Amino acid sequence: MTQAPSDTLSRRHAAIRRQLAARELDALVVTSLPNVFYLTNFTGSAAIVVLTAADLFFVTDFRYVAALERTRGTASQCPGLELVRVDRSYDEALAFLLAGMSQGRVGFEAAHLTVARHQWLGSALARGGSGVSLVPTDGLVEQARVRKDPFEIAMLREAAARLSAVATRTLQDVPRGRTERDVAWAIEARLRDAGFEKPAFDTIVASGPNAALPHAQPGERRLIEGDLVVLDFGGVYASYCVDLTRTVSIGAPAPRARDVYAAVLEAHDQAIAAVGPGRSRFDIDAAARDTLGRHGLAEAFGHGTGHGLGIEVHEAPRITRRATSAGPAGASDADERVAAGMVFTIEPGAYIPGWGGVRIEDDVLVTDEGVEVLTEVTTELLEI
Amino acid sequence: MTQAPSDTLSRRHAAIRRQLAARELDALVVTSLPNVFYLTNFTGSAAIVVLTAADLFFVTDFRYVAALERTRGTASQCPGLELVRVDRSYDEALAFLLAGMSQGRVGFEAAHLTVARHQWLGSALARGGSGVSLVPTDGLVEQARVRKDPFEIAMLREAAARLSAVATRTLQDVPRGRTERDVAWAIEARLRDAGFEKPAFDTIVASGPNAALPHAQPGERRLIEGDLVVLDFGGVYASYCVDLTRTVSIGAPAPRARDVYAAVLEAHDQAIAAVGPGRSRFDIDAAARDTLGRHGLAEAFGHGTGHGLGIEVHEAPRITRRATSAGPAGASDADERVAAGMVFTIEPGAYIPGWGGVRIEDDVLVTDEGVEVLTEVTTELLEI
Repeated sequence: MTQAPSDTLSRRHAAIRRQLAARELDALVVTSLPNVFYLTNFTGSAAIVVLTAADLFFVTDFRYVAALERTRGTASQCPGLELVRVDRSYDEALAFLLAGMSQGRVGFEAAHLTVARHQWLGSALARGGSGVSLVPTDGLVEQARVRKDPFEIAMLREAAARLSAVATRTLQDVPRGRTERDVAWAIEARLRDAGFEKPAFDTIVASGPNAALPHAQPGERRLIEGDLVVLDFGGVYASYCVDLTRTVSIGAPAPRARDVYAAVLEAHDQAIAAVGPGRSRFDIDAAARDTLGRHGLAEAFGHGTGHGLGIEVHEAPRITRRATSAGPAGASDADERVAAGMVFTIEPGAYIPGWGGVRIEDDVLVTDEGVEVLTEVTTELLEI
Repeated sequence: MTQAPSDTLSRRHAAIRRQLAARELDALVVTSLPNVFYLTNFTGSAAIVVLTAADLFFVTDFRYVAALERTRGTASQCPGLELVRVDRSYDEALAFLLAGMSQGRVGFEAAHLTVARHQWLGSALARGGSGVSLVPTDGLVEQARVRKDPFEIAMLREAAARLSAVATRTLQDVPRGRTERDVAWAIEARLRDAGFEKPAFDTIVASGPNAALPHAQPGERRLIEGDLVVLDFGGVYASYCVDLTRTVSIGAPAPRARDVYAAVLEAHDQAIAAVGPGRSRFDIDAAARDTLGRHGLAEAFGHGTGHGLGIEVHEAPRITRRATSAGPAGASDADERVAAGMVFTIEPGAYIPGWGGVRIEDDVLVTDEGVEVLTEVTTELLEI
């Protein structure tokens, strides 16, 4: 599998270390697995990184030690990694490692450590007489991840090209008479054949009235003449996620289907036209939302216009309405401007209970000059 | 999809309400999605439940409101559910709901709420002048989930029977010369065909020396004569997870392969023989571990003997070594005894760096009388 070269990892470490220095932190405990991957190329299911000015301690268990040893000496090995093997539990190993630092300000990821683990860790350190203090931090690694580096952009471009090829083939032969579940499964088989490691999320195939549910689960309903069908799927390629939606018509679309489709497509195009370095993510959302509003579909569009893509299928930036004081989960109004290197979806939709729905989604990269649409699939309303 | 009937949900609500009363809690905020599913049959990707003595508030967003409305009046609708629709963020909606209670002791799931969300929620309640106090709780719903109810046992039996059928067909034609990745993909296709919603985890196909890695990721290595191949796969059926491993030999196994296999199989059989109501989960682990030790393979078995199965593929009980003060993540020595209704894996293995490995895994149910092995696949060392 293609992985970030060692010098890319070094640059990522250096960026986080600058953040530590700016915050007068002696270390950062990284418990988010996507963040661990970003810093080390580790793709297993359990590990903790403790990054200090001089060291990168990598805490993992028996299952992954041998796999890790194999990366030594390769072009994508993690520079400066010091292995800490878990004997009984991760938090015990972490407490032991931190206690060894004897004192200092140790940042932890407040969005990726539970109250229970935080409490246990604090107690364990206090019991051991450690002078270490735990300091909450907010998205230090995520802030680095939001602007993709050249390696990541190359992976996302490749992933989007492969996803576009899957989509183009899929749109050519959506089989009428088959169930949503069958169609979803056929798409996932194509994702595998195209070199994706796995689907990026549960594939959505929502037909007829089911298309009014933005997150419908594919079921036993069969595709019939007159349906609009929303096909929303994505894949993980070299650990990077891409995501695409098209809506097709089984047979000739009714006039209302044509109208709703045209409105959503106009919203999609307007939103993409609003993307560029320094543009507000709220304005990008408004470009889609206002367009749908002009077509009388404001109420039919209940979700955000887009979400960031990368190691996670939903990450920053969120392309949403402006919302003040809306909670801790990335919904704050900070970081309003999008910038070169950001990758996100543009996916307006219209959902009409009892009737059906339309969504059209592409993945875009903000460039120095403006925007590059990474996915490349027709946006015409295809009749199957 | 088959779902728990409403009266089963009512019994689950009643069990949690008894726990609330015993702890003098006025409400429990359920942020763990598997726990939300257990209480409501909701299978979407975002929701919070607030359970009080009289009410069940269900907080969800636009994407799921219509899907939820559809369950009204069905045999598996959630009794007493009151819908709270999220406008801006989940935590904002939750804070607003809790503030409406004006006072009281509100439990939250300390293992399923991050430090950041807890801090934000506490501040929001304080800002609003609410008299509500947030009280950490530890696994209230998980403790109910650990002993499966009759509906769950029926689902797990059915899932295990389907997984056994997939395994039996798979073992008949593991194709030599194909890559690990191809074989993994063929298994996942069979899981779909057998009615599973999705794989329960990333399928493991580890051949030759790769089998020394307990959590190997399937790669481009082709299966060749003389390999032992570990095949570990599982599926989600009606939202319940099952998990199975067999190890096969490509061609005739070498004497050492036969010996290691025989030792692991003996450990597997001894562990199953140690399962029964009131038995210690540490003793079940020791039955496997001591057997491997007698064969000189103590060092080769670095993981636990098993894990609980249910809505999650890894849940309580953990069948592991006794370990005091090993952290907050379910590794405490509490709840040592297994009881009727518990479902877990038995999966000893031996991993020898540079040589390869063996793992044999079945799923068992603790019954009033002893043990029922839910999976049913030959444990002979098959030569492919």
